[in-house]
Amino acid sequence: ALKKKQTNKKTLVKCSGMKHSEDMKARVVKYFTQIRCETNKYLLAHVLNNSYYLLPASGGEEMTRGFLQELVNILFGYISKTSQRSTKVLDFHHPHQLKEGLEGFSLDLSDQPETLEQILVDCRDTLKYGVSTGHPRFFNQLSSGLDVIGVAGEWLTSTANTNMFTYEVSPVFILMEEVLLRKMQSIVGWSDEEGDGLFCPGGTISNLYSILVARYHFYPEVKTKGMGALPRLALFTSEHSHYSVKKSAAVLGLGSENVVVVKCDERGKMIPGELEISIITAQKKGLVPFYVNATAGTTVYGAFDPLCAIADICDKHTLWMHVDAAWGGGLMMSDRHRMKLGGIERAWSVTWNPHKMMGVPLQCSAILVRKRGLLQKCNELGAEYLFQRDKHYEVSYDTGDKSIQCGRHVDVFKFWLMWKAKGSEGFGSQVNKCLENAEYLYDQLQRRADFQLVFGHKPEHSNVCFWYIPPSLRGMPPGPERDSKLHQVAPRIKGRMMEKGSVLIGYQPLGTRVNFFRCVFSNPATQQEDIDFLLDEISCLGHDL
Amino acid sequence: ALKKKQTNKKTLVKCSGMKHSEDMKARVVKYFTQIRCETNKYLLAHVLNNSYYLLPASGGEEMTRGFLQELVNILFGYISKTSQRSTKVLDFHHPHQLKEGLEGFSLDLSDQPETLEQILVDCRDTLKYGVSTGHPRFFNQLSSGLDVIGVAGEWLTSTANTNMFTYEVSPVFILMEEVLLRKMQSIVGWSDEEGDGLFCPGGTISNLYSILVARYHFYPEVKTKGMGALPRLALFTSEHSHYSVKKSAAVLGLGSENVVVVKCDERGKMIPGELEISIITAQKKGLVPFYVNATAGTTVYGAFDPLCAIADICDKHTLWMHVDAAWGGGLMMSDRHRMKLGGIERAWSVTWNPHKMMGVPLQCSAILVRKRGLLQKCNELGAEYLFQRDKHYEVSYDTGDKSIQCGRHVDVFKFWLMWKAKGSEGFGSQVNKCLENAEYLYDQLQRRADFQLVFGHKPEHSNVCFWYIPPSLRGMPPGPERDSKLHQVAPRIKGRMMEKGSVLIGYQPLGTRVNFFRCVFSNPATQQEDIDFLLDEISCLGHDL
Repeated sequence: ALKKKQTNKKTLVKCSGMKHSEDMKARVVKYFTQIRCETNKYLLAHVLNNSYYLLPASGGEEMTRGFLQELVNILFGYISKTSQRSTKVLDFHHPHQLKEGLEGFSLDLSDQPETLEQILVDCRDTLKYGVSTGHPRFFNQLSSGLDVIGVAGEWLTSTANTNMFTYEVSPVFILMEEVLLRKMQSIVGWSDEEGDGLFCPGGTISNLYSILVARYHFYPEVKTKGMGALPRLALFTSEHSHYSVKKSAAVLGLGSENVVVVKCDERGKMIPGELEISIITAQKKGLVPFYVNATAGTTVYGAFDPLCAIADICDKHTLWMHVDAAWGGGLMMSDRHRMKLGGIERAWSVTWNPHKMMGVPLQCSAILVRKRGLLQKCNELGAEYLFQRDKHYEVSYDTGDKSIQCGRHVDVFKFWLMWKAKGSEGFGSQVNKCLENAEYLYDQLQRRADFQLVFGHKPEHSNVCFWYIPPSLRGMPPGPERDSKLHQVAPRIKGRMMEKGSVLIGYQPLGTRVNFFRCVFSNPATQQEDIDFLLDEISCLGHDL
Repeated sequence: ALKKKQTNKKTLVKCSGMKHSEDMKARVVKYFTQIRCETNKYLLAHVLNNSYYLLPASGGEEMTRGFLQELVNILFGYISKTSQRSTKVLDFHHPHQLKEGLEGFSLDLSDQPETLEQILVDCRDTLKYGVSTGHPRFFNQLSSGLDVIGVAGEWLTSTANTNMFTYEVSPVFILMEEVLLRKMQSIVGWSDEEGDGLFCPGGTISNLYSILVARYHFYPEVKTKGMGALPRLALFTSEHSHYSVKKSAAVLGLGSENVVVVKCDERGKMIPGELEISIITAQKKGLVPFYVNATAGTTVYGAFDPLCAIADICDKHTLWMHVDAAWGGGLMMSDRHRMKLGGIERAWSVTWNPHKMMGVPLQCSAILVRKRGLLQKCNELGAEYLFQRDKHYEVSYDTGDKSIQCGRHVDVFKFWLMWKAKGSEGFGSQVNKCLENAEYLYDQLQRRADFQLVFGHKPEHSNVCFWYIPPSLRGMPPGPERDSKLHQVAPRIKGRMMEKGSVLIGYQPLGTRVNFFRCVFSNPATQQEDIDFLLDEISCLGHDL
């Protein structure tokens, strides 16, 4: 008991630096003193910070409000700090350092409860040692930014704490999903009689759905009989496409080696002639082509495959055409850029992740399927404990059996709320701004002698790929020796960058090209000054390499 | 412009009933008057409620804080109301009513932005027309309750807005996942040298992983070559098991008809002798058995399959033994109940959903795999843009390639935080309380003449299944006529119950048993008075049937 008391004391001391925590303590002490524990001081001390006195415990309103208010102060502080350029993007620690425990932040879990104050300290520390993905200088991932309305939407979603399987438990969210899917389908260009879909846990699962549904469309017997009853099927996707096509082929029992990788041009776009050759070659080998994935916005280069030409080939060979617009889909919100996805209306299915270019908090990804009813037929099993047919409302709104999941997280509300707050036009402006940033970076890179573009075309999406060339390599002739040295530059700069925490950007090799940086813009908070900072910082961190 | 102004006015009037909204308005007006718009009244009116003036817009702190504070007031009001028995569990409206728009709540999305005040009104309405899954009288789903610490955890998660693929962007959450998985594995009973796992988007996906990994374990060539290279495989699961086994078999290309359904005893437990017969029969038909799913806590009856006897059979035939403890796993937290899962330590994989019996907000489901490294080998593709091997930290912490997803939502933090706040012991008490409620309901049902238990055993889990017998059926002899009438009783009571909104409970038929109610307890807020209320309410709603 003494030891326990000392621990409490420690956390109290620690907590005192936290804004408002004295207020909260005072409020809670007052509350318990007045109502519950007038004579029992020990009980007071014990009770003060115990989560068992939160709602739904009777009389827990005050304590719950106080606790959530403290939390919101911490979260608001984080949101506010994230948008300040003077704060770090990350405060890096190696795994072993975090596991050993830093300044009292311990990941270990015990049999006994911690105090509520300690819980708040843990929340603060969790944010402190994390990465500010909303920082204007975080360029590391396709998803970035921190939209306040989106965050608000997710706070509400978690408070509503329900599931997407039936209208019975999610009336509002199920209808919002319908509204958003219709909206997205009409933007893709499908008629009112076409279009179906679902929000999925990420773009890879959305792509998996496209293959699953395509397979079922051509071979409905696969659902009951399995792949053993089918010929050896072949899928086609470009060498620059996302790895999810191969991953899904492995998961679905199609086999990753039956995914035929089609060559791209220098800019990362699938070459339609190569697709046609690949199809014919596969047929000659005895495979049965059935599915083509075209990418609208590749992961590294941000390239758009020529959708119309691919659609023609798919028509000719009666192949399912899927467009993976996980990253590029957002451009359809902009009048200035949507022509880059011309032909997408001819797709049979589309993946589109609002959590990428549209800035919706993670996760929010949609699979759109042109033929209505196919998702339901492909996946339904009609479990009677959940999807009773004798309900008193219209059961076609129990959309859960369309899904390969049972329980499904509500990913739709934050997106709906952001659309309300921005309007379609607001998303359009956001996209335009991100693409302007990419053009600005492209222009700067062209002007600077210490950087080299990976390819010399104006960016189509917000991806810009480049090498930093340290002084030691500038005079060196192209060749294996220079390549081998250059290959080590980006990882070493990235390591220093993470230790310093001032900015974050990704790198990778691709094909014959050695490690290069890929900058992507999806955070509307990013300004030109941040781009200047990025280049100066890379140069500063890599100058001596 | 005039029309726009009128819309604004309307929402302002509407908003005035909302607590604090006048305060907020005043604060914001003051802010903009002082700092930005001293001379431009039109701009002031326009700007007042526009989300573009939230962070990261420069100077948006005040407005962001005000907006989030308003939202938190709404959310806190909801949390507080949810725990009050005097409030409804739901305020039911048919889909067409909600779609037409109720009292100004419109689901439609437009090109133009709404005001921030309208956004807040929409948030309030979204909660108003939803279902209070945290209400002490919500018995409809295996997931219920509203844990304040869990909600706090999810608020933080959405504010951190990151992804589980790499240590680079999720250092803290990746390590928390490791800590929790280790904890769960040790509770299952695996040694320190064994055990691997992932948090997944729901129990169905966790079960899918178990089959995927089992298939890869026996036939690693399936990853590249597909199911065509394998014999016709057979899976075994009980007739009372969750539909996810069949669904996953369809998705993975195994075929749902290759899932052999094994008979259960009256209580819903798999009969080991029947399993053995099924295996031999399948072999005689030329199928190759490889996987058995045993259920620890079936969906409807809450039955526990005899794990030790099933493990013996799996050993004998060298079959992968999976335990679907999505629902029953929580009982391992209780010293009083964990023996019901005796033998689970012999499983090769386990599904365990903390979002069910442990009250963690949706979603939180784990797949645990005994053999370390198998998940990684089965699913890795080594995409170089994400999983670079030349990083400056220990890349074994980049666990994202274990997953069939690419982006993966952070489901782990809320669970970690709840564990901190309750300790293992707190979860144990919670489970004990829910099972005590089930026993209380069972006792009450035995005493009442207007109800009939579906089977006469004391509940093993928190599921209690029963019929309400209206006076008109009480004298009727058993037989098809009574069955046909009784079958309609539960749906009709449920319809009335939803319209009234006082309580919510599920029903379904099962095998030869006509529609019956299934009550489940997973919300520690539920008290005995709620159980009495449930029975009285059913009786009241169904008396005239």
